[in-house]
Amino acid sequence: MDKEKTKYLLEEKDMPTQWYNIQADLPEPLPPLLHPVTKEPTILPPPLFVDELNKQEFSKERYIDIPEEVQSIYRQWRPTTLFRAHRLEKALDTPAKIYYKFEDSSPAGSHKPNTAVAQAYYNKKAGVKRLTTETGAGQWGSALSMACMYFGLELKVYMVRISYQQKPYRRNLMEVWGAKCVASPSPDTQIGKKFYDENPNHPGSLGMAISEAVEDAATHDDTKYALGSVLNHVLMHQTVIGLETKKMMERIGTYPDIIVGCVGGGSNFAGMFLPFVKDMIDKKHKPKIICVEPTGAPSITKGLLAYDYGDVAGMAPICFMHTLGHAFIPAPLHAGGLRYHGMAPIVSHMVKLGLIEAVSVPQLGTFEAGIQFARTEGYISAPETDHAIRVTIDEALKCKQEGKSKVILLAHSGHGHFDMAAYDAYLAGKLEDFELPEAKIKEALAQLPQIPKK
Amino acid sequence: MDKEKTKYLLEEKDMPTQWYNIQADLPEPLPPLLHPVTKEPTILPPPLFVDELNKQEFSKERYIDIPEEVQSIYRQWRPTTLFRAHRLEKALDTPAKIYYKFEDSSPAGSHKPNTAVAQAYYNKKAGVKRLTTETGAGQWGSALSMACMYFGLELKVYMVRISYQQKPYRRNLMEVWGAKCVASPSPDTQIGKKFYDENPNHPGSLGMAISEAVEDAATHDDTKYALGSVLNHVLMHQTVIGLETKKMMERIGTYPDIIVGCVGGGSNFAGMFLPFVKDMIDKKHKPKIICVEPTGAPSITKGLLAYDYGDVAGMAPICFMHTLGHAFIPAPLHAGGLRYHGMAPIVSHMVKLGLIEAVSVPQLGTFEAGIQFARTEGYISAPETDHAIRVTIDEALKCKQEGKSKVILLAHSGHGHFDMAAYDAYLAGKLEDFELPEAKIKEALAQLPQIPKK
Repeated sequence: MDKEKTKYLLEEKDMPTQWYNIQADLPEPLPPLLHPVTKEPTILPPPLFVDELNKQEFSKERYIDIPEEVQSIYRQWRPTTLFRAHRLEKALDTPAKIYYKFEDSSPAGSHKPNTAVAQAYYNKKAGVKRLTTETGAGQWGSALSMACMYFGLELKVYMVRISYQQKPYRRNLMEVWGAKCVASPSPDTQIGKKFYDENPNHPGSLGMAISEAVEDAATHDDTKYALGSVLNHVLMHQTVIGLETKKMMERIGTYPDIIVGCVGGGSNFAGMFLPFVKDMIDKKHKPKIICVEPTGAPSITKGLLAYDYGDVAGMAPICFMHTLGHAFIPAPLHAGGLRYHGMAPIVSHMVKLGLIEAVSVPQLGTFEAGIQFARTEGYISAPETDHAIRVTIDEALKCKQEGKSKVILLAHSGHGHFDMAAYDAYLAGKLEDFELPEAKIKEALAQLPQIPKK
Repeated sequence: MDKEKTKYLLEEKDMPTQWYNIQADLPEPLPPLLHPVTKEPTILPPPLFVDELNKQEFSKERYIDIPEEVQSIYRQWRPTTLFRAHRLEKALDTPAKIYYKFEDSSPAGSHKPNTAVAQAYYNKKAGVKRLTTETGAGQWGSALSMACMYFGLELKVYMVRISYQQKPYRRNLMEVWGAKCVASPSPDTQIGKKFYDENPNHPGSLGMAISEAVEDAATHDDTKYALGSVLNHVLMHQTVIGLETKKMMERIGTYPDIIVGCVGGGSNFAGMFLPFVKDMIDKKHKPKIICVEPTGAPSITKGLLAYDYGDVAGMAPICFMHTLGHAFIPAPLHAGGLRYHGMAPIVSHMVKLGLIEAVSVPQLGTFEAGIQFARTEGYISAPETDHAIRVTIDEALKCKQEGKSKVILLAHSGHGHFDMAAYDAYLAGKLEDFELPEAKIKEALAQLPQIPKK
């Protein structure tokens, strides 16, 4: 074992210079985005998004050039490492070969900078001076803070209050990079003030923070809005993950039988699997692709595939996606990045086409898996990533039972350095699994927008 | 700028397979270690250290093989990246070329695993079941926790209480890897109990935590002690840093004019500069090597070069080193890793021989530098590392004044992910510089052990 290679690295010159756009290869096009008021097909609202991102959102070009200014920042940490998990395999005594693509090494510690840097660049190029966004656990807010720092943009982050209080280090990180971060609901917006005045200690939700950030951008001339997941252009920016992985695996001379990743809005995992889905569409390979979501926010496994708002206030465009309803209030999971009520339309579309599948896992087992990973591979993973590790371990144990030496590829989306309190709670026996009452989902789904039939 | 290379990486096969032992090349040998009671020359106490580490401590072999078991763990993150700081250079508008060797990427986030893994390995090999150690800021305690996890050793860490309370995430990290961590002074040892009974909330000190860990190891049969800095073998294990850097810089075709690093006990920076000192002894090159210490614990710049105890209780061997006195209580700096009263004998010896120099810098300027680094290079550095960044920036600005394009090499010892509260305090204007009264140093230096003249 020890003599086998542990890390597989591409050189800087092998970093992708184009993003892959799955829309060029879809056997069936995506349903249109609808305007939140007229409910007619629409583009991304121009007061919120610059032209270039709007173009990318609906583009049918297969490959889109990554500007040199974006590449030069990617090169600070990309290409990222592909690890072979020798020690985990040995601990599991499995014939499976486990690889993990390690997005932890960006300064912000996750995959989020892949799109944050691109979005900051296009906004800067269009003359925008200031961005707004929301963040739950803080991975996206900190990534965009870093990106805005690189391009000299101002940034205001609306951070879900419960996370703002539980994860002060994430807020500190944003401030070190120069962003302004406030707890949401805040008194700074009309929608926020309504909730804030009722209860200044309101815990907030991602949908509510989105509404605040959108309102801020819509009401300030020099300001645009940035979203960290869900939208097509965001997922496309993440495809550098999968493109690098495919290239490296080709060099190793292997191909994954199973690909596993966690999904909240869907961007990290889609970034990994979309280049592999291309191989499925091209009938070259047929890997099993598994989206892992928490049982506390199971949008694919328990939600509906339907038109729904992206935010609580119904100001954002209406997407056709797997949703638990925009009024859904998720369980207070430590994996804050997986608590969104909806799922990226592209990911939802892939599920519908039967190209990928989804499972949901309860919280306790994910921390158990994260600790097993830390005690073999060394690295401390984000609670979000622990969801994917749980299923990776389960699949590797199945291989052992079946005596099959499958190749499992894990999308390791980020580190858990700012989530240690969650591990502490787990080790102290203070965490629990959540039973999500079916009635609660039904109630939220009853509030889906009514879309006139054509 | 953008087209120039950002990251320089060696391949796994280029990772050093031997550590460099400066003792083979010293123009003058190190003064002997003295027994704490007899004050006669001594070895490392065998109840505390296994034979192999004792051999390394006094070896005159120039190169010592790194066991394959240790190499295989190093390969999880080594060779580490050498970065060119293009963005920082641009922000400073300096003709200097700044490189930084990035030890942040180990799972524990610093250089400390380089020796932690080696020490755990040799103890395991000798049949030891359990280790004890102390930790201040927690970088060492967490690195040794990780190393003990890899080799299946039990570990008990005595963590200076003030850090235990201020940095719960560091403690959590140790626990995730399976170590036991208690606040020091603790009721678990005789020396600790004495202070604990007087004041259960005693803030503790590194010297006191060392005494506790040493007592624990000395009074348990299956237990040895591990030290994270100061000793010769510890510094030698760190030379992988400098060996990799030299090899990479040779490939780039450059050589540093100035080498900068922070020093607490001295291990991180010695690991970087010792292979370059060899070039000075061999009269091949003459780089300027600058040790940066905090004005709150200035052992080289304000201490004496004298024989002193390594710990508060006077149980550890007596070293000939720069010291502020083992009774010295440092300022409550956020750079907890730089608060030790003494300095590695090898580093002290290099200063005496005129091979390296030292400066001390106040705390506020180090955070200012750390934030400038984060806002250009992206990475958040440990407060310890910020000391080295301060002097790197100062030297680069001197280059600008003088119009000289010098090559500056920075030892980037670790990340600051577990130190965000310190950045928060700095940004909120709550940090201050410490005036260290000369009288306080004099008082501590008056308590140096009396060594009989021969």
